[in-house]
Amino acid sequence: MFGIILAGGSGSRLWPLSRELYPKQLLNIQNKESMLQETYRRVLDIIPVEKIVNVTNIKHAPNVKFQLSKLADNPVVISEPESKNTAPAIAMSVKYILDNYSGAKNEVVFVVPSDLKIKDTKNFVSSVKDAEKLAKKGYLVTFGVKPDYAETGYGYIKIGDEIDNGYKVKKFVEKPDSKTADKYSQKDGVYWNSGMFMFKPDVFMKELEKYVPAIYNIVNRFDFSKGDHIPFTDFENLPNISIDYALMEKSDNLAMTVLKSDWLDVGSWKSIYDVSKKNIDNNVKIGHVLDIDSKDSLIYSSSKLVATIGLENMIVVDTDDAVLVCDKNRVQDVKKVYETLKQQHDNTQMVHKTVYRPWGYYTVLAQGNGFLTKMIQVNPGQKLSVQSHNHRSEHWVVLSGMAKVVLEGKDLILSPGHSVDIEVKAIHSLQNPYEENLQIIEVQKGDILDEDDIIRYEDMYGRV
Amino acid sequence: MFGIILAGGSGSRLWPLSRELYPKQLLNIQNKESMLQETYRRVLDIIPVEKIVNVTNIKHAPNVKFQLSKLADNPVVISEPESKNTAPAIAMSVKYILDNYSGAKNEVVFVVPSDLKIKDTKNFVSSVKDAEKLAKKGYLVTFGVKPDYAETGYGYIKIGDEIDNGYKVKKFVEKPDSKTADKYSQKDGVYWNSGMFMFKPDVFMKELEKYVPAIYNIVNRFDFSKGDHIPFTDFENLPNISIDYALMEKSDNLAMTVLKSDWLDVGSWKSIYDVSKKNIDNNVKIGHVLDIDSKDSLIYSSSKLVATIGLENMIVVDTDDAVLVCDKNRVQDVKKVYETLKQQHDNTQMVHKTVYRPWGYYTVLAQGNGFLTKMIQVNPGQKLSVQSHNHRSEHWVVLSGMAKVVLEGKDLILSPGHSVDIEVKAIHSLQNPYEENLQIIEVQKGDILDEDDIIRYEDMYGRV
Repeated sequence: MFGIILAGGSGSRLWPLSRELYPKQLLNIQNKESMLQETYRRVLDIIPVEKIVNVTNIKHAPNVKFQLSKLADNPVVISEPESKNTAPAIAMSVKYILDNYSGAKNEVVFVVPSDLKIKDTKNFVSSVKDAEKLAKKGYLVTFGVKPDYAETGYGYIKIGDEIDNGYKVKKFVEKPDSKTADKYSQKDGVYWNSGMFMFKPDVFMKELEKYVPAIYNIVNRFDFSKGDHIPFTDFENLPNISIDYALMEKSDNLAMTVLKSDWLDVGSWKSIYDVSKKNIDNNVKIGHVLDIDSKDSLIYSSSKLVATIGLENMIVVDTDDAVLVCDKNRVQDVKKVYETLKQQHDNTQMVHKTVYRPWGYYTVLAQGNGFLTKMIQVNPGQKLSVQSHNHRSEHWVVLSGMAKVVLEGKDLILSPGHSVDIEVKAIHSLQNPYEENLQIIEVQKGDILDEDDIIRYEDMYGRV
Repeated sequence: MFGIILAGGSGSRLWPLSRELYPKQLLNIQNKESMLQETYRRVLDIIPVEKIVNVTNIKHAPNVKFQLSKLADNPVVISEPESKNTAPAIAMSVKYILDNYSGAKNEVVFVVPSDLKIKDTKNFVSSVKDAEKLAKKGYLVTFGVKPDYAETGYGYIKIGDEIDNGYKVKKFVEKPDSKTADKYSQKDGVYWNSGMFMFKPDVFMKELEKYVPAIYNIVNRFDFSKGDHIPFTDFENLPNISIDYALMEKSDNLAMTVLKSDWLDVGSWKSIYDVSKKNIDNNVKIGHVLDIDSKDSLIYSSSKLVATIGLENMIVVDTDDAVLVCDKNRVQDVKKVYETLKQQHDNTQMVHKTVYRPWGYYTVLAQGNGFLTKMIQVNPGQKLSVQSHNHRSEHWVVLSGMAKVVLEGKDLILSPGHSVDIEVKAIHSLQNPYEENLQIIEVQKGDILDEDDIIRYEDMYGRV
């Protein structure tokens, strides 16, 4: 069996914790591991590392690789040059599998989003086995979940005749209006689509050719065994469409197996509230929170003190550069805030004050006329690219750990409290070859202070 | 006429905007001027600068002086070494007036808190004139405001016989329980105490001697014309009591004049909401706020983005290191948050955002055009670098501990309450060679106020 993990989502409804450049699947909200890592671990139980293809946006690829490499050596990560919803991502991944693994035709492919919470591994594995049997018979297999309420954000599956370990699908309705959702959610023989799929790759490609030739034709032109990527100029011609609208609503070759495990789509702050442990007043408090008499609320603090008094059914999320305060019944509108900020080019939608990089992260502490100050953490064994800047000088002070700096070909080792000046155009690199985290303060000075003012000479993360 | 402006309050109910070291009277929330400055301007219309005594806590004295000096030359500011509520502050100020101005006995003293909003200057001045006539006749004069509702946080005045421009007072009840407040607020002939007072200084001292000898005896021992201050060791023996409980509830020599102007005690976030301009949804939005569908709410952002969705009747206040989210009917409980933080030694109650240095830390209390104020803590045995600044002068006041200052080669030892001026380009250092923490207030002035404007000559942390 092959796996495809969809790791390209934006998670706009979990703003301000998720950002365009650090989406929800990368977050660890109350856990040690991110949702992506939890998903990868779940799939690794069933499928070996070399047969799991993680597909993500090129913007997230370094972070995805970094997170996955903590769980397995050499995770397979392929990138879309642009976000185009699930249909192009799955099509590209299936073609990648067909091109790179001989004999893949005779196996099945299991597609999993990276934002599902599933705890009951045993029943999950058992349902995957059920689906496998159906997929091998030539069906596009979905996993059905018994509806709890009239959710309009999911797809609904109306089942027909029983077949081995599942049902034929009579009808698939993606994101119905609230009247239809209401009707469906109360009806027997109707299920939510869990977002996971299973199929034989050649079955998938045939259906794709039939119903979405615009995707089939482009994807089929490339041979991914030659390390080919779909260039941006071709990729941008792909339709921006989900697999649900593109194939599932149209195909008459669908089957469904009932997902026997628990299941939660972590799509909103309400769902985070729902899965989190509550105190006696039904509050979820995370971080530095001081509350008086609130109930049924989620209060999240990234670092600062958040004091709350008398809240009911509220969501409060505080991050370094943005705060959200929202009625718990209005969490779907967080997406509107995200879209508004994007339209306004307000970069609190795009980045955190803290920006994650393959080598660690940095946080902008302060900026002003002609200067910018960052706290930079370089993780053990990591190295920033060998680089120079045309418009800024930099000054580094080591806070903790030890830094190896190469400046104009000369090696320096800096311990806490020591510093170095890097003049405009000087070729330099920063490295942490030690076992402790390295933290430095960087002060940039210059007329132009822009992340794009960088010439890279060497880079261990392939960014040259 | 003399004036006493009470500028020592803590404003715990306006946390997190007000802090122990930067209380509400110093804040400018939606205005160009702080409440203290507005109050001073109002009193300057009636009384000349040299006859207005501003009394505050020693911790706030540098900021009070700085703010007042923008409105008049040489404002008179006297300090309490410790906060002891209004009775000791007024007693000390009256004695200061008697000692420093010959002929003060024959004039009257007007006492004004620094957290009242009054817009109608004409009627305010007219009420002051009414009170003056009563005070000259030997009454302790209060200013009455017609109650709007059953507030339990104010004093209530029950009037008796009419006298010139006012009434004799039958009864004065400070902060009644809610049942009594309810009864009083609906009764004719009952007024709120506005917090302002007027009296002849010798009348005040006689009443003080009669009802609060514990204050009279200590205050009377000092001669303020000799520049005397009440030392901490004496001051700490003064009872911690308001003028309302100490004198007003007891004296049978009270009169009241009706305050003909508008009046608002800015004591809570609700009152800030009430006086602020609202949009069509009855929201007050200050700073970087993005709202969807909220109403009847106050949303305040100091710097970050605050996004709100579907709020009703809420207070949201965001500052650099703390966020408050509070039901608008629960604003009195903000004080509980403040007290809890104080008990927990959480310094988000005391100061704003703190920056740690090898020698201790500093917190920016306030900054504006041409000035910046910090609270600086130097840990025992630590020393800041020997330094000078090209663009700013500095003024240091010791709050606690002892400071060793070297200024242009000269050694100075400063104890609490003492201060030193450091001119532009003067070479100076600050050291705490003792065993207690040293805390100082620093006021920087200059066209360029930048951490980078520093020339270091010597530094025990290798930062030269």
